[in-house]
Amino acid sequence: MVAVEAKGTGKNIRAQCRAGTLSTQTSGLAPGYVQANIVILPAASANHFQTFCQRNPRPCPLLAMSPEPGAPTLPELGDDIDIRVDLPQYRVWRNGVLAEQVTDISGLWQADWTAFALGCSFSFEEALLDAGIEIRNLTEGVNVPMYTTHIPCAASGPFSGNMVVSMRPMVASDAIRAIQICSRFPSVHGAPIHLGDPSQIGIADLSKPNFGAAVTVKDSEIPVFWACGVTPQVALQTAKLPLAVTHEPGHMLVTDLKNTDLAIF
Amino acid sequence: MVAVEAKGTGKNIRAQCRAGTLSTQTSGLAPGYVQANIVILPAASANHFQTFCQRNPRPCPLLAMSPEPGAPTLPELGDDIDIRVDLPQYRVWRNGVLAEQVTDISGLWQADWTAFALGCSFSFEEALLDAGIEIRNLTEGVNVPMYTTHIPCAASGPFSGNMVVSMRPMVASDAIRAIQICSRFPSVHGAPIHLGDPSQIGIADLSKPNFGAAVTVKDSEIPVFWACGVTPQVALQTAKLPLAVTHEPGHMLVTDLKNTDLAIF
Repeated sequence: MVAVEAKGTGKNIRAQCRAGTLSTQTSGLAPGYVQANIVILPAASANHFQTFCQRNPRPCPLLAMSPEPGAPTLPELGDDIDIRVDLPQYRVWRNGVLAEQVTDISGLWQADWTAFALGCSFSFEEALLDAGIEIRNLTEGVNVPMYTTHIPCAASGPFSGNMVVSMRPMVASDAIRAIQICSRFPSVHGAPIHLGDPSQIGIADLSKPNFGAAVTVKDSEIPVFWACGVTPQVALQTAKLPLAVTHEPGHMLVTDLKNTDLAIF
Repeated sequence: MVAVEAKGTGKNIRAQCRAGTLSTQTSGLAPGYVQANIVILPAASANHFQTFCQRNPRPCPLLAMSPEPGAPTLPELGDDIDIRVDLPQYRVWRNGVLAEQVTDISGLWQADWTAFALGCSFSFEEALLDAGIEIRNLTEGVNVPMYTTHIPCAASGPFSGNMVVSMRPMVASDAIRAIQICSRFPSVHGAPIHLGDPSQIGIADLSKPNFGAAVTVKDSEIPVFWACGVTPQVALQTAKLPLAVTHEPGHMLVTDLKNTDLAIF
């Protein structure tokens, strides 16, 4: 199990991002606080993206969005959030292609932009670790392996594509416990969508993830698959919008919500 | 899916047993009502059995017991229950060996006897069917296949033995849903205890169950295993008590509780 370095609150991490003193990955920072994937879109595509999230809640669990077009705030996630400066790093996409990686988007922000915050697997990984379940990608110190499946998302406007899943191997008793635990957290991808035979969801080779790094799967273990937050990023690239902004992978918005706040029972 | 014949309430079924007009299996009777496994023991072993159930709640979920030794009642399960006459059929065990099958134990009842009612898989099978999940043993019209595992129960007095499990094959997505649904019902065995490779829990051959009948397992399916109410019956046989009474398998006590009453969330 990877040691989690206790380092402040969501508010504290955001203040450091805003001051320009923090631009690293946020994994392990502010333990207990919800971290979120961020997608920022102009008005022309924002409504379509909102509907894409609503139609595909497992890969795209919408935690919060700007209260009105042009507002760089997410009041449900923290009363002082300025989404233009509160992330450690951003990706700027032009015509579906990564154009820049920056630490501040104040100069880019437009009066019709909407920010979307989507739940992230960090929250359920914390709940699983708290339950004594090993998370192999953390043990092995790599990015979780992610795979493109043959499961189509429900399309909305320019947004479409197949679901991407993350995979964590575990013994059956841990898989059962993980299903129970993750079912309590639908806003951070919820229960796994598949377990066992990868070919049933269109994955040919577990040792060749489409994103992240392969991890060891022991003979005694089964692969367990969760809908993954990379799905909306792939849909975004496919949509080839003139301009869009996301967080840099691993460099999340750290919010004031606690992971335990997300439990539905 | 097997058609469930709507046939009265728990009270109605018990009245027919008491009147001697019903001595059949109770599967499918009084749909929606909780049916229970019954174990009746003399004072010398009742406390040990109560502790055996408390220590092994997955195979032996104790729903209710006689309010005092000698009381043939189970007031939590129905205010008019007379456990001496309210089952369709009983088994009488002498020295761990099946001695008689009878429809009335009034003549045997002793002043120090205690009746135990344990949760039964009928309740969770109903919840799974309601969710649109196929139960293979019902589809194929056979008794669910049951297997002795290498998982030891926690012993208590003369009661010990390995856990017996029932097996229902399903596709992964149904297995995940079944784990979620059954987790709501800990008093009727709760979530599965294993899925996938049977050898991991000491089962050599799925086509050779120790109790019940084998069912078809399709290539696309994984076997899912639940702790089973046959476990206490095996423990009872192993204990070789001079005298004990149980229900005849499949011939359950039909109670006034509704299956939905058992959901913990």
